[in-house]
Amino acid sequence: MDRRSFLRTSALGGTAAAASTLAAPAYAQGKRKLTMVTSWGRGLAGVFDAAEYSANLINVMSDGQLEVEIKAAGELVGAFDVFDAVTSGQADMYHAADYYFVSQHPAFAFFTSVPMGMTAQELHNWYYHGNGAAMHGKLGEIFGLKSFLGGNTGAQGGGWFRKEITGPEDFNGLKFRMPGLGGKALGYLGASVQNIPGSEVYQALSSGAIDGTEWIGPWADEKAGFQEITKFYYTGGFHEPGAGLSLATNLDVFNDLSPAHQKIIEAAAGYTNSWSLSQFLMNNGSALERLKAGGVKIMEFSDDVWDAFGEGTRKMNAEFMGDELFKEVYDDYNASMRASSGWTTVSEGVYRTQRDRILG
Amino acid sequence: MDRRSFLRTSALGGTAAAASTLAAPAYAQGKRKLTMVTSWGRGLAGVFDAAEYSANLINVMSDGQLEVEIKAAGELVGAFDVFDAVTSGQADMYHAADYYFVSQHPAFAFFTSVPMGMTAQELHNWYYHGNGAAMHGKLGEIFGLKSFLGGNTGAQGGGWFRKEITGPEDFNGLKFRMPGLGGKALGYLGASVQNIPGSEVYQALSSGAIDGTEWIGPWADEKAGFQEITKFYYTGGFHEPGAGLSLATNLDVFNDLSPAHQKIIEAAAGYTNSWSLSQFLMNNGSALERLKAGGVKIMEFSDDVWDAFGEGTRKMNAEFMGDELFKEVYDDYNASMRASSGWTTVSEGVYRTQRDRILG
Repeated sequence: MDRRSFLRTSALGGTAAAASTLAAPAYAQGKRKLTMVTSWGRGLAGVFDAAEYSANLINVMSDGQLEVEIKAAGELVGAFDVFDAVTSGQADMYHAADYYFVSQHPAFAFFTSVPMGMTAQELHNWYYHGNGAAMHGKLGEIFGLKSFLGGNTGAQGGGWFRKEITGPEDFNGLKFRMPGLGGKALGYLGASVQNIPGSEVYQALSSGAIDGTEWIGPWADEKAGFQEITKFYYTGGFHEPGAGLSLATNLDVFNDLSPAHQKIIEAAAGYTNSWSLSQFLMNNGSALERLKAGGVKIMEFSDDVWDAFGEGTRKMNAEFMGDELFKEVYDDYNASMRASSGWTTVSEGVYRTQRDRILG
Repeated sequence: MDRRSFLRTSALGGTAAAASTLAAPAYAQGKRKLTMVTSWGRGLAGVFDAAEYSANLINVMSDGQLEVEIKAAGELVGAFDVFDAVTSGQADMYHAADYYFVSQHPAFAFFTSVPMGMTAQELHNWYYHGNGAAMHGKLGEIFGLKSFLGGNTGAQGGGWFRKEITGPEDFNGLKFRMPGLGGKALGYLGASVQNIPGSEVYQALSSGAIDGTEWIGPWADEKAGFQEITKFYYTGGFHEPGAGLSLATNLDVFNDLSPAHQKIIEAAAGYTNSWSLSQFLMNNGSALERLKAGGVKIMEFSDDVWDAFGEGTRKMNAEFMGDELFKEVYDDYNASMRASSGWTTVSEGVYRTQRDRILG
């Protein structure tokens, strides 16, 4: 915890003061190559697409003055090494899911997804019109990053199992792939939780290194091929109700760009954020139908399993409450979620119920 | 219908052919001023904000090479005259809700919202990863526009009434403000439906020119002050389950811009689209609480009222099915809605139900 405390203290006061005393900077002129490392294998459905879409937006909008070159997982550094690569200056930006970096700081999880937390839209409400973006910026700054949301998977499926889950006790001893704070919560149910990069999950499941996995949702999961190995798929999940992806740039690199180029990166991330969410949600429905037709059993967890997920989540959160910044983000995040979820229930929720009733 | 048929025929074949025979164009050099007319009074909550946000993005990302100047409703042309102003070349772009222009073509309604239609997210799924954007482009091209979604209000409230609505018969003879195809559907319940620009609704309600109104949702409606006049507010509405705003540029003006500047306009619209939706949804919850505390009765329509909304919608749609392009968009839109709504129900829907149960 020493490194975090030190960095936090120095960053929160220090950076603002430094910025205000700087003269107007001379921005780098001419073309600039930016290396983007990602946590995604090349072509990985949805997530690599989002990295590629944002990179292309930056290249086109800057008229080629910025030239983002994407390195897929393993091409320059490993899937989970992108954070270190960018903070150290080895690469200029990463596209990843920030909850891969909870060992750097647990509050990174809020900018992907946390168990019993926000849906994708609630995350966007908080991010763009609550304190979310500012807190993401503050957290990133501690490590020398300028961070933006740059994609979202929507609510993730409960995942793939070899056998039906009949009660919470079935998680006891289960070797399951689940990253972030969701994985830590699942540990309280007795699961042996592992984090494995997306491109390596199939192999782990196939070899029996894990008994089951969550990945994203029907479309990305079908492309990964989990239906070839496991036949029970749970649609609702507690662990990632709307998982954000992040586009983070080395802070020195970002500060060296012109305001126009900085805004281009911000808007590329913002547009991609929505474009990406729509991609998952447009494709999941037909993929679910195909999985069902192919013999996969489409399931929902029972209430007692959900209660155990809730209890695991409470215990996991308690574990981190001693960290001041985690608690600050947690409190703000939850207040925002409560503030924005009620209207959705009485407007869109009422509407969807009536539409389903009337259109059948 | 003659103008539409003529324009449609000439545009769908004609424009593509013309484009393919053109040599690579010489893009306009130097700074370019773009006049953006809007359907919104200056400062109108949420909607004017979206126009301003997108204009600022364009100005900053282009490093001032594009300079969008906003004209609020009435400053250059009236709220509903922005379409003619841009198609005629009097102004360069508009920010508006395309369903204000159903008299130009009824299919414009799909790019705002149609009764019993898509939620905001379903609209984005169709727009960015179905045929939505292409169809918006095709429709805009007929009239000489390059159109993008550039904002969304989320599911709109059922609206404001002087008296409780006890059954569908209460709409008979009611003078009600509701634009677009929702208004036409409500006409089948016997309502006397009017369209009035946002900034003029308070006056119309206050004077008794109308008995009730829908506008957007608790936040924008509270700012408009309808709670000072009417005391019954219905949260769920059938007419605009996720109303898109549009940023449309004169097609000749757009084609004269460089690919970088074209992409800047597209991405500004796309980022604003998500930013705007979040703004409404972040602010609606607390506004609803304030309205309630101020003595407004928060209501839901009964099932028989919803059934009448459904019946009115069926009759309204039948009215337009003779138009080939309307039917083409209608069929594609509804197929997309069916394809993407199911997954949301079994993933985010199941999750929200469990989260509400567990967190209370």
